Amino acid sequence: MNEKPSIQRNSILLPEPTLRRLPWYLAYLSTKNSDEQYISTTKMAGELHVDPSQIAKDLSFLGIRGKTRIGYEISTLVDTLRNFLGFAKRHNAVIVGVGSLGAALIADSGLQHYGLNIVAGIDTNPSLIGSDICGVRIFSPDNLPQLVEKLGIVIGIVTVPVESAQQVANAISQSGIRALWNFTPTRIRVPEGVVVTNTSIYSHLAVMYNRLSSLDL
Amino acid sequence: MNEKPSIQRNSILLPEPTLRRLPWYLAYLSTKNSDEQYISTTKMAGELHVDPSQIAKDLSFLGIRGKTRIGYEISTLVDTLRNFLGFAKRHNAVIVGVGSLGAALIADSGLQHYGLNIVAGIDTNPSLIGSDICGVRIFSPDNLPQLVEKLGIVIGIVTVPVESAQQVANAISQSGIRALWNFTPTRIRVPEGVVVTNTSIYSHLAVMYNRLSSLDL
Repeated sequence: MNEKPSIQRNSILLPEPTLRRLPWYLAYLSTKNSDEQYISTTKMAGELHVDPSQIAKDLSFLGIRGKTRIGYEISTLVDTLRNFLGFAKRHNAVIVGVGSLGAALIADSGLQHYGLNIVAGIDTNPSLIGSDICGVRIFSPDNLPQLVEKLGIVIGIVTVPVESAQQVANAISQSGIRALWNFTPTRIRVPEGVVVTNTSIYSHLAVMYNRLSSLDL
Repeated sequence: MNEKPSIQRNSILLPEPTLRRLPWYLAYLSTKNSDEQYISTTKMAGELHVDPSQIAKDLSFLGIRGKTRIGYEISTLVDTLRNFLGFAKRHNAVIVGVGSLGAALIADSGLQHYGLNIVAGIDTNPSLIGSDICGVRIFSPDNLPQLVEKLGIVIGIVTVPVESAQQVANAISQSGIRALWNFTPTRIRVPEGVVVTNTSIYSHLAVMYNRLSSLDL
């Protein structure tokens, strides 16, 4: 792990807890109105309920330093966070499985503000192939390798039914894509050199239902 | 914490790691075709890459036991898991913030299979109020308390912009809803007796971008 963020700012393998907190800081800072120019870690800590030394440590990965007694310039910090987190860059992605969740993600234009640019969809359903959803064309699975090359796709989003998840993950990995965003409740396995990020919304629902039903104990 | 699952099967406060694994087991079992009647923890462990004793321990919370040398009856295990996880029950929910993500969640009919029944939307945009999205009516924020009572809403889904998240969370908590599903990158605070589940898809994107850019180091 490289500890010199000023040199390889976007390529350090950060601790996951830090990576999860940085977007909170960004979200918080983006609610500040423009007449506030500077912010201290102490003020951020008070409002975010995170230890100030933790915030300072997290922000040290960005390679910027606050000024003593003044803190960080908000606009610089926001820009640096957006760049650092990859939100300011375009990452071309393909959605594999254009069912209700896949179609919903294509329709969610908000993802673009976070650097995710969905450029194509893949589905086995002949009635979907060749159609457009919010300007995104749907293709047959056979087209995946050519699409990846032609459109410069770097992320594959897996929104197929559970029983197809592993097979689809294999096809995505073989097409040259090296990052999979898995929305299925399947533990998909990938070759070395490919990363998987799981967003298990159904697991989150299960946790929420359990916490809710336990409130009255 | 109640350790007797046979008595209060749906009301035990389970460890979160167990709650996150149980949906994997369910997803895995649902891919089994109907000519397999029984499954052992050893077989599940081999395919899911989870320790067999961990699986047995997780399943012990369900209050069912496998048969020695035979294992668990798959159909019973699937039904028990679905009931236990709350997926077989209807939880009425309101979406607060019908922007691109909120509208996408309303359109995602798949959530119904996991027990989430979105019955109303809330937005401040006058052009949305009174309209329907996939049969779900959109109301003004003023209507929230009446809607909660009239429609038996138990879950509030927060999909507003960051700067409104805390204020919306307050309004939801005050309306009598005791479970919030937070999709914003805000750390929202709620009164005691209210639970929050965070699905930070933008944090997941940040983690994925970082892992992707670190692959070539």
